[in-house]
Amino acid sequence: MMKPLPVIRIGICGLGTVGQGVWKHLSRIRPDLESRLGVKLELTRASVRDLRKSRGVKVPAKKLTTDSLAIATDPNIDVVCELIGGTTVARQVTLAALAAGKVVISANKALICAHGAEIFETARRHGGHFLFEASVAGGIPIIKALREGLVANRFPLIYGILNGTCNYILTQMEEQDAPYTAVLGEAKELGYAEADESLDVQGWDTAHKAAVLAYLAHHTWVKPKQMIVEGIDRITPADFKHAVALGYGIKLLAVIARDFETDELSVRVHPTLLPESHVVAKVSGVFNAVSVRGDVAGTTLYIGRGAGQDATASAVISDLVDAVALLKNDRRAFITARKASAPARPARACRLAPLEHIRCRYYLRMTVSDEPGVLAQVATAMAAKQVSIASVIQSAHEPAGAASLVLTTHRSDEQAMRATLAKLARLRCVLEQPLLLRIGDFAD
Amino acid sequence: MMKPLPVIRIGICGLGTVGQGVWKHLSRIRPDLESRLGVKLELTRASVRDLRKSRGVKVPAKKLTTDSLAIATDPNIDVVCELIGGTTVARQVTLAALAAGKVVISANKALICAHGAEIFETARRHGGHFLFEASVAGGIPIIKALREGLVANRFPLIYGILNGTCNYILTQMEEQDAPYTAVLGEAKELGYAEADESLDVQGWDTAHKAAVLAYLAHHTWVKPKQMIVEGIDRITPADFKHAVALGYGIKLLAVIARDFETDELSVRVHPTLLPESHVVAKVSGVFNAVSVRGDVAGTTLYIGRGAGQDATASAVISDLVDAVALLKNDRRAFITARKASAPARPARACRLAPLEHIRCRYYLRMTVSDEPGVLAQVATAMAAKQVSIASVIQSAHEPAGAASLVLTTHRSDEQAMRATLAKLARLRCVLEQPLLLRIGDFAD
Repeated sequence: MMKPLPVIRIGICGLGTVGQGVWKHLSRIRPDLESRLGVKLELTRASVRDLRKSRGVKVPAKKLTTDSLAIATDPNIDVVCELIGGTTVARQVTLAALAAGKVVISANKALICAHGAEIFETARRHGGHFLFEASVAGGIPIIKALREGLVANRFPLIYGILNGTCNYILTQMEEQDAPYTAVLGEAKELGYAEADESLDVQGWDTAHKAAVLAYLAHHTWVKPKQMIVEGIDRITPADFKHAVALGYGIKLLAVIARDFETDELSVRVHPTLLPESHVVAKVSGVFNAVSVRGDVAGTTLYIGRGAGQDATASAVISDLVDAVALLKNDRRAFITARKASAPARPARACRLAPLEHIRCRYYLRMTVSDEPGVLAQVATAMAAKQVSIASVIQSAHEPAGAASLVLTTHRSDEQAMRATLAKLARLRCVLEQPLLLRIGDFAD
Repeated sequence: MMKPLPVIRIGICGLGTVGQGVWKHLSRIRPDLESRLGVKLELTRASVRDLRKSRGVKVPAKKLTTDSLAIATDPNIDVVCELIGGTTVARQVTLAALAAGKVVISANKALICAHGAEIFETARRHGGHFLFEASVAGGIPIIKALREGLVANRFPLIYGILNGTCNYILTQMEEQDAPYTAVLGEAKELGYAEADESLDVQGWDTAHKAAVLAYLAHHTWVKPKQMIVEGIDRITPADFKHAVALGYGIKLLAVIARDFETDELSVRVHPTLLPESHVVAKVSGVFNAVSVRGDVAGTTLYIGRGAGQDATASAVISDLVDAVALLKNDRRAFITARKASAPARPARACRLAPLEHIRCRYYLRMTVSDEPGVLAQVATAMAAKQVSIASVIQSAHEPAGAASLVLTTHRSDEQAMRATLAKLARLRCVLEQPLLLRIGDFAD
């Protein structure tokens, strides 16, 4: 007589775009996964906000509930996919499920960023497990690459495009020579941008993902307010023209840099001029890219769709397969496997780099009054802060009487540039707050 | 009293470039890995050909042996890293270690390609485990991506640059406008090419790696003789000029395509014209790139160093960490984990596509006699095989009396092109065997 296969019972909290994608693809490929894994996979329950709403996937009414927490605490559920989003109910659900020793699969970068320490500590204490491949860069298995594939490496530099909405907007602005607001409106119509775009375009979503990557690579939680975070909403078509003239493209990048000599870590999110020959500069539209410099493997680069129903579902299902392997092992093995993949406690403290240690070259665009002596005033103000000018482009500008002044600097630091911006803003000839972009001359 | 940590005993067969890299990096990061994994890692034994040779790493004499098989069968060894290369001793060592239920870690694509079915069957039968992240694309964790990160996907198309030597040679030929033989000589001096370069430049090394990827993605062993395998040794600087004029670069690609309608699989290795805007066309020097089209995640692309001591050691050590997790679990868990990651037996048979189903556009360069009517003869010969011409570049040529004729075709198939080549070779006006390159118009 055949022993019946063990059953893994899955609860999905949140049947929005991602939840429906997981339900759809899992239903479709379940027979294949079951024969591969030697278990039965049961989509046991799902929670929704509105039981009557019609959805793209067929879920039997008796499996639906409006109570996500009931799924998290249901003793019959082994794996909870938290796909609600936000940081309130999602946090309760995650902590309750982990406290019950379950495996939680999450796509929720905002939650991890805000409550990661609490989440991982709860998992550790109760033998639960928290998997989050879907939280960063959608269909690209970057979490697995960092914590398993590149386990032999330390990571002096990780940077990349982590927000498809911003990359789509920047790509369209460059290709169509169109202003930000027009492209944003178009992106909303196409569903590439949310009704409230601020989380994306101001860089916060990228910052959440950067926090997840920084934790994986450096075992340190960095809050967005400890990062430099700047968005794309002040970039104009003229900036693209200037960037091209200088040999660059513009991408919103997260940059996670650690100096292993001083053990200083910096995490920043900002629009960046990337040399146009750089592969990452070619990554266009909704695609994401992550460049990882490892001290053993060298630089590896990962490109793929960063969001969307299908790409995210692909990541959630890969976590589900890992969850099955964990659940099928006995208790001891379970803890072993968790230890193998969880980041270790830091061997030595890793502190945040002060602003004066964060160095790069800069691009500065400002609207100035169109009169003699302006460049001299600007150059004097910059020299006072020890910022050395590398190139200047000056051009007439609407409205009449105004000109556009674009400067690039030699290497300087964030501290000096902040002081420079403050000084420039006080000059009478500088008509509005200058726009500062970073130049990303990453080797590799 | 603390329970002593379990000890994982590692044997390294072969202390060449890769073996020394593994020894070096593992010695360095061992304390960190041990605290992360909760085990002691012991570099127990290593085999070499010559005990007296001095090496870049210090290995105590008492740990060295010339008998690799003794390491494979040593009951004190848990993990065997087979880094000997070749397919004779390496095969014996691998099979013996797997038959003893050990974990074998391999970087040996030639061995997997030639004896993969036997190796995996031996592992299955005896509860051993075979890990091979280092066998394809060095520091890029592509094996893990395919079998874990993208587990929810089927793979209609995988293609990429899998041989750094060839990519280095092609990049140099293009950038320096230099002939193949000159660049090859330079590459040998720099250590980027082997003394016997044929395995690399004729495409066989790429074919071995393609076989590994095809097995992972399609659970089917394809032998190199069942593939189309063409090398780079007949490409000239003129081909790069023509390619650029047509908007392309030239890369040696492996292409693994499966049609899930007909269930036909094709695996081929050949120099390919890639649109110059394509990200893979920008991957230069010794770097590798793998593009993976998944039916759920969409296309993801992986770029990194494909070979070299450090990149390969990074991959071997990541397998070692997976090995530790496997070994620390009990027997049942061990088999579970193996089943989770090993490719399943094919749900349905996957057969090789006949040549007439392998379709693309082609680039044809031939040296012809410089006289009127040649193009008419060539065009007639091609039309007879139903091959339709898309563009023609004709240019005078040394030696006097000869001209160069470059054609691109509309979509045709391998069968028709073979017949066309045979027919063209019989024309009196065609002075040498035409060079055929494929055009890779991959969407994404």
